[in-house]
Amino acid sequence: MPQLHDFSATDGTDRDLLGGKGAGLARMISLGLPVPPGFTITTDVCRAAMVTGEVPDDLWPEVDAAVVRLEQATGRTFGTGSTPLLLSVRSGAKFSMPGMMDTVLNLGVNDEVVKALIDWSGDPHFAWDAHRRFVQMYGDVVLGIDENEFQDVLSELREARGVGDDSDLGADDLEEATRRFREIVEKQRPGELPDDAMQQLKGAVTAVFKSWNTKRAIEYRRIHSIPDDLGTAANVQMMVFGDLGDDSGTGVCFTRDPGTGEKAIYGDYLPRAQGEDVVAGIRNTLTLDQLAGLHPECHRQLLGIMEGLESHYRDMCDIEFTIERDVLYILQTRAGKRTAAAAVKMAVAMVGEGLIDKKTAVTRVEPASLEQLHRPRIADRVKRSSAFASGVAASPGAATGTVVFSSDEAVEQSRNGPVILVRPETTPDDIHGMAAAVGILTSQGGKTSHAAVVARGMGKPAITGAAELLVDVGAGIASTGTGDLRRGDVITIDGTSGAVYQGEVEVVAPEVPEELNDLLAWADEFRRLGIRANADTAEDAALARGRGAEGIGLARTEHMFMGPRLAIVQRVILATDPAESEQALADLERQQIGDFETLLEAMDGLPVVIRLLDPPLHEFLPSRLELEHEMLRRVRAGRPIDDLQAMSDQVARWEEDNPMLGLRGVRLGLMVKDLYRMQARAATTALTRRLQAGGDPHLEIMIPLVAAAEELIRMREMIEQEIAAATADSGVGLDIPIGTMIELPRAALTAGEIAAVADFFSFGTNDLTQMTYGLSRDDAEGLFLRDYLEQGIFSSDPFQTLDRAGVGRLVRVATREGREANDDLIVGLCGEHGGDPESIFFVHDLGLDYVSCSPPRVEGARLAAAQAALDTTREDA
Amino acid sequence: MPQLHDFSATDGTDRDLLGGKGAGLARMISLGLPVPPGFTITTDVCRAAMVTGEVPDDLWPEVDAAVVRLEQATGRTFGTGSTPLLLSVRSGAKFSMPGMMDTVLNLGVNDEVVKALIDWSGDPHFAWDAHRRFVQMYGDVVLGIDENEFQDVLSELREARGVGDDSDLGADDLEEATRRFREIVEKQRPGELPDDAMQQLKGAVTAVFKSWNTKRAIEYRRIHSIPDDLGTAANVQMMVFGDLGDDSGTGVCFTRDPGTGEKAIYGDYLPRAQGEDVVAGIRNTLTLDQLAGLHPECHRQLLGIMEGLESHYRDMCDIEFTIERDVLYILQTRAGKRTAAAAVKMAVAMVGEGLIDKKTAVTRVEPASLEQLHRPRIADRVKRSSAFASGVAASPGAATGTVVFSSDEAVEQSRNGPVILVRPETTPDDIHGMAAAVGILTSQGGKTSHAAVVARGMGKPAITGAAELLVDVGAGIASTGTGDLRRGDVITIDGTSGAVYQGEVEVVAPEVPEELNDLLAWADEFRRLGIRANADTAEDAALARGRGAEGIGLARTEHMFMGPRLAIVQRVILATDPAESEQALADLERQQIGDFETLLEAMDGLPVVIRLLDPPLHEFLPSRLELEHEMLRRVRAGRPIDDLQAMSDQVARWEEDNPMLGLRGVRLGLMVKDLYRMQARAATTALTRRLQAGGDPHLEIMIPLVAAAEELIRMREMIEQEIAAATADSGVGLDIPIGTMIELPRAALTAGEIAAVADFFSFGTNDLTQMTYGLSRDDAEGLFLRDYLEQGIFSSDPFQTLDRAGVGRLVRVATREGREANDDLIVGLCGEHGGDPESIFFVHDLGLDYVSCSPPRVEGARLAAAQAALDTTREDA
Repeated sequence: MPQLHDFSATDGTDRDLLGGKGAGLARMISLGLPVPPGFTITTDVCRAAMVTGEVPDDLWPEVDAAVVRLEQATGRTFGTGSTPLLLSVRSGAKFSMPGMMDTVLNLGVNDEVVKALIDWSGDPHFAWDAHRRFVQMYGDVVLGIDENEFQDVLSELREARGVGDDSDLGADDLEEATRRFREIVEKQRPGELPDDAMQQLKGAVTAVFKSWNTKRAIEYRRIHSIPDDLGTAANVQMMVFGDLGDDSGTGVCFTRDPGTGEKAIYGDYLPRAQGEDVVAGIRNTLTLDQLAGLHPECHRQLLGIMEGLESHYRDMCDIEFTIERDVLYILQTRAGKRTAAAAVKMAVAMVGEGLIDKKTAVTRVEPASLEQLHRPRIADRVKRSSAFASGVAASPGAATGTVVFSSDEAVEQSRNGPVILVRPETTPDDIHGMAAAVGILTSQGGKTSHAAVVARGMGKPAITGAAELLVDVGAGIASTGTGDLRRGDVITIDGTSGAVYQGEVEVVAPEVPEELNDLLAWADEFRRLGIRANADTAEDAALARGRGAEGIGLARTEHMFMGPRLAIVQRVILATDPAESEQALADLERQQIGDFETLLEAMDGLPVVIRLLDPPLHEFLPSRLELEHEMLRRVRAGRPIDDLQAMSDQVARWEEDNPMLGLRGVRLGLMVKDLYRMQARAATTALTRRLQAGGDPHLEIMIPLVAAAEELIRMREMIEQEIAAATADSGVGLDIPIGTMIELPRAALTAGEIAAVADFFSFGTNDLTQMTYGLSRDDAEGLFLRDYLEQGIFSSDPFQTLDRAGVGRLVRVATREGREANDDLIVGLCGEHGGDPESIFFVHDLGLDYVSCSPPRVEGARLAAAQAALDTTREDA
Repeated sequence: MPQLHDFSATDGTDRDLLGGKGAGLARMISLGLPVPPGFTITTDVCRAAMVTGEVPDDLWPEVDAAVVRLEQATGRTFGTGSTPLLLSVRSGAKFSMPGMMDTVLNLGVNDEVVKALIDWSGDPHFAWDAHRRFVQMYGDVVLGIDENEFQDVLSELREARGVGDDSDLGADDLEEATRRFREIVEKQRPGELPDDAMQQLKGAVTAVFKSWNTKRAIEYRRIHSIPDDLGTAANVQMMVFGDLGDDSGTGVCFTRDPGTGEKAIYGDYLPRAQGEDVVAGIRNTLTLDQLAGLHPECHRQLLGIMEGLESHYRDMCDIEFTIERDVLYILQTRAGKRTAAAAVKMAVAMVGEGLIDKKTAVTRVEPASLEQLHRPRIADRVKRSSAFASGVAASPGAATGTVVFSSDEAVEQSRNGPVILVRPETTPDDIHGMAAAVGILTSQGGKTSHAAVVARGMGKPAITGAAELLVDVGAGIASTGTGDLRRGDVITIDGTSGAVYQGEVEVVAPEVPEELNDLLAWADEFRRLGIRANADTAEDAALARGRGAEGIGLARTEHMFMGPRLAIVQRVILATDPAESEQALADLERQQIGDFETLLEAMDGLPVVIRLLDPPLHEFLPSRLELEHEMLRRVRAGRPIDDLQAMSDQVARWEEDNPMLGLRGVRLGLMVKDLYRMQARAATTALTRRLQAGGDPHLEIMIPLVAAAEELIRMREMIEQEIAAATADSGVGLDIPIGTMIELPRAALTAGEIAAVADFFSFGTNDLTQMTYGLSRDDAEGLFLRDYLEQGIFSSDPFQTLDRAGVGRLVRVATREGREANDDLIVGLCGEHGGDPESIFFVHDLGLDYVSCSPPRVEGARLAAAQAALDTTREDA
């Protein structure tokens, strides 16, 4: 097998081997587009290098030969001669990982070549800039020298010349910069900066392959669920120069608006620049219309190419281009990242345009992104003029949070509440901070800057290029002429408009693209999994129904017992006088009947699963630590504490070291029997009333925390007694399925026994994950779970995405054995995983009947369920 | 199939069908012994009745016919005639459940028959006593009337006559008692006491079958692991009368001494009594020697029968007999209950006598009972004369505890500390109290009383018949002439001597029968499972080795960190100054090296598994609640609290709601890296030193709480670094297997992945049970586990006996998949279940390599492992 392929030698279909970028380049050449020639070193090489730790030796002769072919094709020569060939080396994996891996540009320059370049271009500034860029990049990427050392030199020179931008430095300055850069490199890595062009190429290719396994790349893959063993390809390509004088430049364009989804081309162009300058957002950019004024022919040609690429790929394309002395080159194309709203609009529009079919449309939108469509935005009445600053509306939605100035700080402070990350610009090293923040604000960069692209991918509001902000990270201040933002201040950002507000401002629900209903209706045609919602109130139920939920899969009755009712519950448990306890129960029952009636009414015609009480006991009882605190305060104030002491003693009787593993769920139901009986009675009463009122209620009762079939048998008996009593009283026959949560490993392992006495199972994957891992989510998150994820000890957060090997295995076993024991068993899942697309794919494959998730995730779940049904390539791990 | 069998019609081999008692009676008849004739209604009938709720109608014609056969055989007539046939109905299940089920005696008596009985016996006292006993028993057992109502009548009569015992009442009194008993019955269950003898028999048989499912019987089966679906047989037998004047009586005898195992016959005889009087221990009894004086011929005949039965059954027999007018009848025989020491002595002696072979001997001793051989006994220097009271040495061993006077109180108070149950006598209703108590003391009864038999079965010290004690349960006082024991007093009982002491007295280790070594040596020949011990100190290790442990399966290093070292550990975790933390670690390391050296030395030549630290974090940190308490105290005393406040704040950072599910085990090892590294270094240093000292140490390192293979991979890497460093330092090569606890469900479910990087597994079944059930043992025991067991929601305590369906399934899966992934994997178990015979049977069947248990349970484990290997009939559930 050849280890590399010239762009012009393949049709670019093998993305596994060529990576996304390489495949795109080859494809564009086969479409006749003006792509600088080059070749792709395959992902096979990267994978081989991962195994041995070295790029295979037999690659290099192939590279030599490919460079010779390049010289022949371009009429230029590499590392010598009067028409120098300069090369770039860029990573390119199967799945896009923007900015995560390394690139080295301007390979092939040295002291001899730079002279030839001056002669060839007639532009010493250009030639020395190419040289200093090469030394800088090679030093950083290949030799690992701290970038800041180079930046310091440039700062010094800018200061000495009194200019603000590197491009305003003179050719002499750049020559001096090159000299000083080489001194820095020579000092730290003596003899390691090769003059020989082929050695430079070898170093760069090796470094690009290595960059597959940098910490930030691994982190990105973890967040985006990209397998670590894919490897990247490396693309070696002739350099074209966007910085070769004023008739050159470089840009990025989208075939549709990535922010809104409108069918309107969109782009940024930066004259006299290399591509990295656009992406980094260092200077502010021109629009495509402005480009038309500068390069009308190139502009016309670009529009044609954009149209051609979109109809070829049948998707919105993100295209990098360079103009070298008024000649257009296309450097890269890929499916463009887009906001959720844009993805929905485009997908539906493309069906209308006949570009794609409905099934494809359904797979074009990230299910998890739908939630952001419903994100709050700033209220209309908030005067834009009240904004403190403004910038580019880079990722829509509004967010309020505390200002932090570094990513580490973001991670740290986010434990205490929402934070907004404020930076001059972001780099791939900021991924963890952006993940921790609720919003991002930068003073530099445009809509295609790192901050913008990543924030859109994460579905977080972002504002970029808020140029009036002077961000001083060290001092912890961002100033405008009129005021300061300091570390710890609260601000609100509006990623839809680009406005920054001090403090918290009024926000309203966003408008959802009207195309969403079409898309979700198509999804409903394709999916097999039912989608219910977890809802405890009529409001939640109405919201869920509005989002398309087909019932309530989980109504947590303990949530109905919080607030003012808590004191009543405490009376039930702690009362020493049985009459008092009975009275408290009667109060609760009256209220529960109302709770259940309103839920059944809101979900009329659809199932409503009422889960009987399941709190850890301590959630219902006063905290002893707090009682002690209060006693301390009272004693200091000279006040008596006898009542608190009595309560503390009473609570102590019920105290548990590990309430999660204590008297909760069905255990509480079996020990404090009247509580569950009261709930069962309230449920039957509510159902009877709804039937008498002419409704179509479908009530189901679910018993939590069952570990042994016998627990369910006893509860079932009690509930059936209540149903019989209610029927006897009212003459109204009641049909109430009785089922159980499967949320303890033992329940899953003895599912056959339990299914024999259950009408349905619902996997409570939150607790099931806690018990299977022996890990309390709340405790772990504060103390070690983040570290575990950052260090890659756990490859993903098992509380977000169902752990297939452990928890998922229990789900599989219990589903199979439960159904074997009971043909009519209905099997659902109601943990948080019910709203997670990856987990939905998994349980679709297991053949579950439904998932139940929080109302805001219902739409995403509908879409994910459709994608699961449409994807026939997924393997069942 | 016939539903009943005459005793004389079978050879008594089918215990499943006839029950133990029925089979024994049939067998004895076939051996030619003088057994009153009768028939056995099979267990099939009981099982059928369990399904339908009714004894099958077609049984009764068979009973009618059998009674006719009985009349023919005895020449007596049932319910009529001049020579009345009276019958008994006794339960009898496959496995003995002494006193748990019902019996009705003297069936066939009525107002007509009583006259015939008077004529036949010439003894109105006897006849009316039979009648009143029948009414009393039928009223209680069949009709469910409160026994106390009858007792009150008898008390009244005794008081009126000024006598202390029912047998001293006159015939007139008994006639009056019968009349008043019938009034009581007629009032509560009008018309339900039949005069017709066959109706009486029908009622009694039905009641006996029903008694299989009384609460106490279910509880007994739970404790003794007897399946609920076996059912009982019912034995209908001609009554013979031990109360037919002074030349009659009844007794119980044993072919060897059930307390010591000596080859010396032993028995109790009670003249002029029915059998129940002996068992209930209501009156004090005569010895067999005394019997010889009264009935020399019967005594001679009995001795011959005892010898014959023992050689027939090749086991010590427990025989019930009655002498009716100087004629001996044998009523029942079974393998006698015995103390552990007696069981060991007898088993070994019988091998010597050629009665049984070694394999049989090994199965003759209850493994769990061996622990009691090592129980403390009262020190010799404690003067017997200092005893407060004394009674029958009914079950050996010494125990100290707080006095309680009822079984409910025993259960309640045992939560606070050991209790001794003090009662006039015990009944089957006291099972729960006896289970909760550490010792039992009764004022009535002999060595065969309920209290004595049950206490021996439970392996608890007991003294019965301490006649000088006047036990007033209501007042909570037990008085002798010289003093009182009150509720809450501490006493010590010596079940070996029968002495009761006030307060705590000196106890010493008991002498173990020398035959034990023979028995265990035979067990070692037969067993396949290795037996290691859980030991953290050189003392424990020496003890374990002395008991035959083949290594340490679990050395819990956190136990080495308690006491004075705790403050050092706190410094490691809480220190804000790294130098302080480092210093504390160095201190710990020095001490750990010593810990490990002494363990390796004590177990020289045998494996020692060191488990790295695994405490819930809160066990190492001061309790915030206690800190708050202390602050409250100080504030009240006007003292400053700043230091405590600072510590409380520091501890709060680490606080967990559910420490069992928190930062512990390998998680702590990965987050506070230096702790585990220090332990690994200490272990390698200790191993090196032992090797240099010429020892033969075998160290293994075990990582706790692994949920994912990656955790073990990282720890393994760290430990291997330390091993390499140690080898480089000392030049001594170290071979240290590295393995993991399997104690989280996820570890079991991903055992294949984990086994690929583990040299051994050790199932930590305590935590595995907690996580699989989602149940904290400590919390559950106080709040609901006892209730769950009492109510039969859990059929056994999963923390004592491994839950096969859930936890056991994980053990099976992990063992199989671990071995599939790693041929050389060694698999052990080191939870508390490692010392439980049932659990040992289970893991033997799974093919584990070893179990590890606490040193006192090592001998029992050796024996259980041998029994597991010898029992080829056990099914793998």
